Amino acid sequence: MLEALSGATRLFIIIGDPIAQVQSPGGITREFAARGHNAVLVPAQVPVAALDDFVRGVSLAGNLDGIVVTVPHKFSAFAHCASTTDRAGFLQSVNIMRRNADGTWHGDMTDGAAFVGGIRQAGCVPEGKRALMVGAGGAGTAIALALLEAGVSELAIHDADAVRRDRLLARLAGRSAAKLVAGSDDPTGYALIANATPAGMKPGDALPVQAGRLTPAMFVGEVITSPEVTPLLTAARALGCGTQTGIGMFAAGRAMMVDFLLHA
Amino acid sequence: MLEALSGATRLFIIIGDPIAQVQSPGGITREFAARGHNAVLVPAQVPVAALDDFVRGVSLAGNLDGIVVTVPHKFSAFAHCASTTDRAGFLQSVNIMRRNADGTWHGDMTDGAAFVGGIRQAGCVPEGKRALMVGAGGAGTAIALALLEAGVSELAIHDADAVRRDRLLARLAGRSAAKLVAGSDDPTGYALIANATPAGMKPGDALPVQAGRLTPAMFVGEVITSPEVTPLLTAARALGCGTQTGIGMFAAGRAMMVDFLLHA
Repeated sequence: MLEALSGATRLFIIIGDPIAQVQSPGGITREFAARGHNAVLVPAQVPVAALDDFVRGVSLAGNLDGIVVTVPHKFSAFAHCASTTDRAGFLQSVNIMRRNADGTWHGDMTDGAAFVGGIRQAGCVPEGKRALMVGAGGAGTAIALALLEAGVSELAIHDADAVRRDRLLARLAGRSAAKLVAGSDDPTGYALIANATPAGMKPGDALPVQAGRLTPAMFVGEVITSPEVTPLLTAARALGCGTQTGIGMFAAGRAMMVDFLLHA
Repeated sequence: MLEALSGATRLFIIIGDPIAQVQSPGGITREFAARGHNAVLVPAQVPVAALDDFVRGVSLAGNLDGIVVTVPHKFSAFAHCASTTDRAGFLQSVNIMRRNADGTWHGDMTDGAAFVGGIRQAGCVPEGKRALMVGAGGAGTAIALALLEAGVSELAIHDADAVRRDRLLARLAGRSAAKLVAGSDDPTGYALIANATPAGMKPGDALPVQAGRLTPAMFVGEVITSPEVTPLLTAARALGCGTQTGIGMFAAGRAMMVDFLLHA
């Protein structure tokens, strides 16, 4: 790919720390090319303390058309956006930034929509379903909002930190007609289980929900990308549940990100 | 190329204004790959007024291993280098920067060596030759120094601005055993003619030397890359002179730049 790389290539940068693990430079650059754009997404490992000066500096490049933002910069990058989508404004965080006509940045946060797009591709229809989401951090907040926008009938939120859980429930109140409740690690009665915690990344992590109470009709989605198949997903698949990996979520989000970045 | 593009790809940026015309992103990225390095050189169009903030900003990225500098930044980028090669220090300009162990920048200026490498590849042996160089600006100064280091017996410098010509002659005094003289646009008696002026880029430009006085034994080298074959080179080729285009010069310089950037 990227046979056309030259001085005329339009530039996109993904910022994170660490950055070596991200796959999107290859995936998104291929998507640019597939759409006929001479453009490249390259990685930049930017420490937290350097974010503001880095973004201000690179923004001065006339051929920099977009920035993709990953951990830990999604909240602090928000401040560099002169405008954002409504959902990014609610979340106070962005994962993609493109230029406004005056050169300032316009941000969006597609993580939640990517999760919902991924579960749809995996055969899960969220409309009218009772959903249990575990983890009320940044990823969980984005996914909770997207599940409400997708039309779940009920959203239960579980987090070991009850204050954080209740704060998210309060923020989401009135965003949709869905019932909003505090959940637990018991998935009984829910059709859709979403893990938005890091539990499952390291060997020996506790499962985010009681796997023994999963049933075959449940759909289980993950945000974790490494390992691709977490212990939770292994347990769910053993029962015959439909599942979505974090890799699947990011693949589903790639087209959304490219649409946004290219004003498509 | 660049099948391996990912978060682990090492980053190099070429800065200039304009930038769309440069070819080195493709050429140097292919050279990185040919040497087994997962690295990419991408273009950044950086206006003069933005150079300092841009360089300070991008330098904060931990995976940025090098910067290639082109017009109009070669002199101002020098100030961003904590250390340089001797020739870059003499020229007070850099065209490539790589990291020192402490993360600061180490600069080099290979334009002159690229010119000499290019004419050697085209069959011209500069040692012991009488050379006439036209144009005492940045490119001319780098080429003059490289011709002296290559061992020409005489270096004549011609510039429409006699003050600039004499200033360069004075700066070069004592750098080698070669005879240093003020030249003219008459190539008579010189074995090597180097054009380091922009004359020939635009239709109707005056020729930098009197083409009617070229003879077949002379070698004529150019710095101009567009058009690839300038009117001066057309005239020289018509006589059977050996020639080197600006494209040839940059191709010859590419390996030197990659050697430097990769600490090879």
